[in-house]
Amino acid sequence: MDQDMNLPEDLKRVVAFHGHFCPGILVGWRAARLAMRLLDAERDRDEQLVAVTENDACGVDAIQYLLGCTFGKGNLVFRDYGKHAYTVFRRSDGKGVRLVYRPAGRELTREESARRLLEEEDDVLFAVGAPREPMPDRAVIRTSAVCDICGETAMETRIHPLEDGRMACVPCREALRRSH
Amino acid sequence: MDQDMNLPEDLKRVVAFHGHFCPGILVGWRAARLAMRLLDAERDRDEQLVAVTENDACGVDAIQYLLGCTFGKGNLVFRDYGKHAYTVFRRSDGKGVRLVYRPAGRELTREESARRLLEEEDDVLFAVGAPREPMPDRAVIRTSAVCDICGETAMETRIHPLEDGRMACVPCREALRRSH
Repeated sequence: MDQDMNLPEDLKRVVAFHGHFCPGILVGWRAARLAMRLLDAERDRDEQLVAVTENDACGVDAIQYLLGCTFGKGNLVFRDYGKHAYTVFRRSDGKGVRLVYRPAGRELTREESARRLLEEEDDVLFAVGAPREPMPDRAVIRTSAVCDICGETAMETRIHPLEDGRMACVPCREALRRSH
Repeated sequence: MDQDMNLPEDLKRVVAFHGHFCPGILVGWRAARLAMRLLDAERDRDEQLVAVTENDACGVDAIQYLLGCTFGKGNLVFRDYGKHAYTVFRRSDGKGVRLVYRPAGRELTREESARRLLEEEDDVLFAVGAPREPMPDRAVIRTSAVCDICGETAMETRIHPLEDGRMACVPCREALRRSH
């Protein structure tokens, strides 16, 4: 499908990042563009934006790529609600929008679904509303500690004392629990 | 720091995706390159690879960008252990490697840390071991259902019956619980 369509340049780059073309990536592409337009925002460099995604499906890769709200930068917050909804906040003034994808009224083929997402107007594709939650806090960088069991280094908040006083990382503590 | 260094092309692209240059992104860049070499793997297109990340810090963005194991494609699995460790599996034969970053023996400046990550050998930077967990299953696509409270569509596994028989999404169920 990607070969025989004349895709916009930004979408081509999103597809290259995601790895393949699919209707899901188009939902995120449209949502990211709409959010940027509504917030008059440019791509994030260092937490100017924060996105809350209510799904972990394909579209999130477009949110990451176009908005710069990425899993590794800590400005992509995942809520496991299984909804095609994205909330994007601009940190400077806390303005945010929640975009909820409106599915088509009938079952579409993959091709029809792609065409709908490429061609329909924003207000056909998304319900735009206010955020349902406060703007998330900024990502925090923490110091490290060493696990007394495996010797590996972990974030201090993921190292906890055992009853015998030794400090253990999460998987070592779980392994000890299972063996008792 | 990024201006006065002659960064490799692939790293420049990773930095552009992440949004800024930082030592953390270098850890992921080195880990992704090493994993690809050890597994003789190319960038993922459609779940040929799956990565388990034991942190949600900057480096994960390099894993996403270079390996194509992305949050939205379902082949990036997050374990909240707070460790600079990445396990990468090749689906075709199940071969996997776990790479654990070895911090420097002493406190480094940001500049020294970046230089170490740009210049040191792989075996100085990473301990390479066997995976600590089985290869994760492939991502599953699920059908949708409608929440009787808010009317939004959600993944069927995230819609549950209330005591009165109505079907509710996760946030609606939580809101009802809080209001009782």
